[in-house]
Amino acid sequence: MTLLVALTWDPKPWVERFRLYLPEHPVAVLGEAFDRSRVRYVATWGPKPGSLSDLPALEAIFSLGAGVDHLMGYPGLPDVPIVRVAQDDLTNRMSEYVVLHCLMYLRDQRRYDADQRARRWEPDKAPPIAGDVRVGVMGFGVLGQDAARKLKAMGFDVAGWSRTPKSVEGFEVYSGEDGLERFLARTGILVSLLPLTPETRGILNASLFAKLARDGRLGGPILINAGRGGLQVEADILAALDGGVLRAATLDVFEVEPLPQDSPLWSHPRVTVTPHNSAVSDPDMTALYVAKQIRRHEAGEPFQNVVDRTRGY
Amino acid sequence: MTLLVALTWDPKPWVERFRLYLPEHPVAVLGEAFDRSRVRYVATWGPKPGSLSDLPALEAIFSLGAGVDHLMGYPGLPDVPIVRVAQDDLTNRMSEYVVLHCLMYLRDQRRYDADQRARRWEPDKAPPIAGDVRVGVMGFGVLGQDAARKLKAMGFDVAGWSRTPKSVEGFEVYSGEDGLERFLARTGILVSLLPLTPETRGILNASLFAKLARDGRLGGPILINAGRGGLQVEADILAALDGGVLRAATLDVFEVEPLPQDSPLWSHPRVTVTPHNSAVSDPDMTALYVAKQIRRHEAGEPFQNVVDRTRGY
Repeated sequence: MTLLVALTWDPKPWVERFRLYLPEHPVAVLGEAFDRSRVRYVATWGPKPGSLSDLPALEAIFSLGAGVDHLMGYPGLPDVPIVRVAQDDLTNRMSEYVVLHCLMYLRDQRRYDADQRARRWEPDKAPPIAGDVRVGVMGFGVLGQDAARKLKAMGFDVAGWSRTPKSVEGFEVYSGEDGLERFLARTGILVSLLPLTPETRGILNASLFAKLARDGRLGGPILINAGRGGLQVEADILAALDGGVLRAATLDVFEVEPLPQDSPLWSHPRVTVTPHNSAVSDPDMTALYVAKQIRRHEAGEPFQNVVDRTRGY
Repeated sequence: MTLLVALTWDPKPWVERFRLYLPEHPVAVLGEAFDRSRVRYVATWGPKPGSLSDLPALEAIFSLGAGVDHLMGYPGLPDVPIVRVAQDDLTNRMSEYVVLHCLMYLRDQRRYDADQRARRWEPDKAPPIAGDVRVGVMGFGVLGQDAARKLKAMGFDVAGWSRTPKSVEGFEVYSGEDGLERFLARTGILVSLLPLTPETRGILNASLFAKLARDGRLGGPILINAGRGGLQVEADILAALDGGVLRAATLDVFEVEPLPQDSPLWSHPRVTVTPHNSAVSDPDMTALYVAKQIRRHEAGEPFQNVVDRTRGY
């Protein structure tokens, strides 16, 4: 009957909410004493390898963040459905992040920040508007489509890229290897919201940066990665910035997190670093979502948002 | 037959475009030689007092920026229609500015900027989302309504205030003195897009700041003024910031512009200064708009967006 909470974050606020929203289920915390034979559900993020094996009564695993790559290739992971937490709150936060950083580039906010420090009054008399800027959203699932709709509402010229062909009203969606070339060739701000899979690992590299549009209004292509750190090759990002291939980058995710103290990304004048905060899971909304899925399951209905283990997302 | 261009900015790009879009009208520039008796139209921004008097053939004045306060109480201003340039481009730019700065506060971007400089990795684990933040847009005309719609698309909880009662689908619009109190009491981020009139001069003052909502998620009320500098009392803003009445302010306009070198606003840690660049007029779009209005007029149709001189906007 037990719900096991296995988190690398402080589990306390989560445990409180699971107890509130699932009063019929005892809640245990990984690291404290509990009866492994009674665990039917696991709510997890980034558990230690091996800690989820040997759970004979397990029926489902809930991944509490936006991705599930932390569970892929996990040793001893029981063969039960992995349910992704897909909730509006997380989607909205991600779109806020993407629109904020696209607008900061559009409006040249870093230049005006520097001007303020220097007490310099120099308005750009012919700045671009959003419609002059082509944003390309890589990864066109729930998160990517919501971000694209909000970017479009702000006036940006938006297209998407998806691994598999996809039709989304209001957007040109490129797909596959061939589509990727054409997608990159029309993209001035590249927004990465891709899942991390063996196919996407390291995809944000020198070869890709070189294919981005160089005729945009922002002085060169810009990278915004709010997907996963494993998507990017940080040495290539730094080389592209310094070689004039990339104009700027906003990174919320990194090869190693927290970003190591000695990373040159922290102090690069054209890099914005945020601490993987683009789409924090809200304990309330997430616990409610998990409770709803468990109730569906116990009423004989299927789980929603089950991960395809072959695709890896 | 002449169109006179009277600008405090570099008139060259404007003159070129008027010649392109209005080939049937000679274009003259204030400060160069021209025949005053032949001037039928004036396209202007911030002309020197008196420079527009003594134009006997004048039929209309086009104000090229978002406001017309620079023409109100202007000595010797001929009694002809003043036409406001209302075009999407300018509206879109203003909304970009407003959404950008609301998102910067929502996402605590200034804190993360400081964290990046300090190489500090400290994501907020329970940040607000846009729906938790109540934005109040003061001035609910074309600009205010467009900004409100885009803020709402991003998820913000938005209401408007207008001097005169107004019904706008999808928004609660407060009006008048009594409505102002209730509007301020529910507002966490105050966005000022008001026109400058004798009634609104100095309206952004200590007494108003004290009425803003103090129970929001952003640590105190925030002011964003992208209207006119004359709306704000800068001494009151500084006192409110230092006294904990205002949490932060983003100012695009100032009592004196350019903002004087010795203004304490430049270096206040919770003030963002931008150089009156929120909604720069695009010469192409503006010249096209003026050309369209002149053609309408010459075809016997009325001008659109004529200023009400009694209201002052």
